[in-house]
Amino acid sequence: MALIARRLLEQLSGVFSNEAQAVANPPLFASIQVVFRPTPRLAPGSLLLEQAYALDPGQPYRIRVLRVRHRQEQGLIIENWALQDEERLYGATMEPERLVHVQQQDLTLLQGCTYLVETAGDGFRGEVEPGCNCRVQRAGRETYLVSRFEVGEGWLRTTDQGFDPQTHDRVWGAVSGAFEFERIRSFAAELPEAW
Amino acid sequence: MALIARRLLEQLSGVFSNEAQAVANPPLFASIQVVFRPTPRLAPGSLLLEQAYALDPGQPYRIRVLRVRHRQEQGLIIENWALQDEERLYGATMEPERLVHVQQQDLTLLQGCTYLVETAGDGFRGEVEPGCNCRVQRAGRETYLVSRFEVGEGWLRTTDQGFDPQTHDRVWGAVSGAFEFERIRSFAAELPEAW
Repeated sequence: MALIARRLLEQLSGVFSNEAQAVANPPLFASIQVVFRPTPRLAPGSLLLEQAYALDPGQPYRIRVLRVRHRQEQGLIIENWALQDEERLYGATMEPERLVHVQQQDLTLLQGCTYLVETAGDGFRGEVEPGCNCRVQRAGRETYLVSRFEVGEGWLRTTDQGFDPQTHDRVWGAVSGAFEFERIRSFAAELPEAW
Repeated sequence: MALIARRLLEQLSGVFSNEAQAVANPPLFASIQVVFRPTPRLAPGSLLLEQAYALDPGQPYRIRVLRVRHRQEQGLIIENWALQDEERLYGATMEPERLVHVQQQDLTLLQGCTYLVETAGDGFRGEVEPGCNCRVQRAGRETYLVSRFEVGEGWLRTTDQGFDPQTHDRVWGAVSGAFEFERIRSFAAELPEAW
């Protein structure tokens, strides 16, 4: 794997918290826990992702497999895979012995939801590929996702918004500004050498 | 006290949670706990208020005494009082034996921050009095507070926003919409009969 992809994996692997942001801005930001855990039984570059309210980390509101790849034609990308029967894996990012139960046959690539990534300083920034094709049902409405992140050594910033496919009006998300996370634990040491 | 003021006190007294809203809209709404507790040693109509992230209810980000009054000239109002050395009272809304330590001499009326209240259906709606005089420091900036609520039997909706006193631009708050609370416990039975 390209060195640059390795660095992205190292910066992402870990537990991120925006508790400082929540405490500084009550009551505008929920405290969120975001965990990216290397999942060595899957293809190189695979991280299990869980996003949850810090109040209830065992009940994530989003669980995915992200796969960092470096492709000749597109450069650095992160594929976004959904999990079948995802409930059985809730909490697995913090109980790594359960990661063996994440298998490729349970994964479905989310079309239109791949992140295109470029370097930015010592870190990276990424955005869902253009085309308005990453469809998300929310509050009974179909929306397309516009999602951006920036990551560096020890920090992560994210914004997610949903837009109406016809009018392109914003339907949900990220009106108070980006979520700003600090990494409170690193799992970079768990990345297989071969990745 | 007027019957109408009594009804407002009965609807407010209790523990309110917006957990359902947070769970339905991740990660856009923090889970908040709002508690109004009758404080019988103070003047009639006094409620100790604590607002806190549900993650850490013992560390409220706002603690006040609210005092419901019915005045000939203004109708129904709620005065907003700050507490001296407020840290010593953190958590007191859930430990009523500590309410004896809330004394009138420790209270300062927040000028410009009185709510004007009117009936709305079976409940009420209120808004901070006009004049842009309820000043709040936030993120190092002086702002004025615009705060609204609606309350009914078992529910509460609130919005708080801060505006720049010169430009009247919104500086903080309530861009995702109102907080929507359900009452999960009532303290109406603790209201003194004489109120």
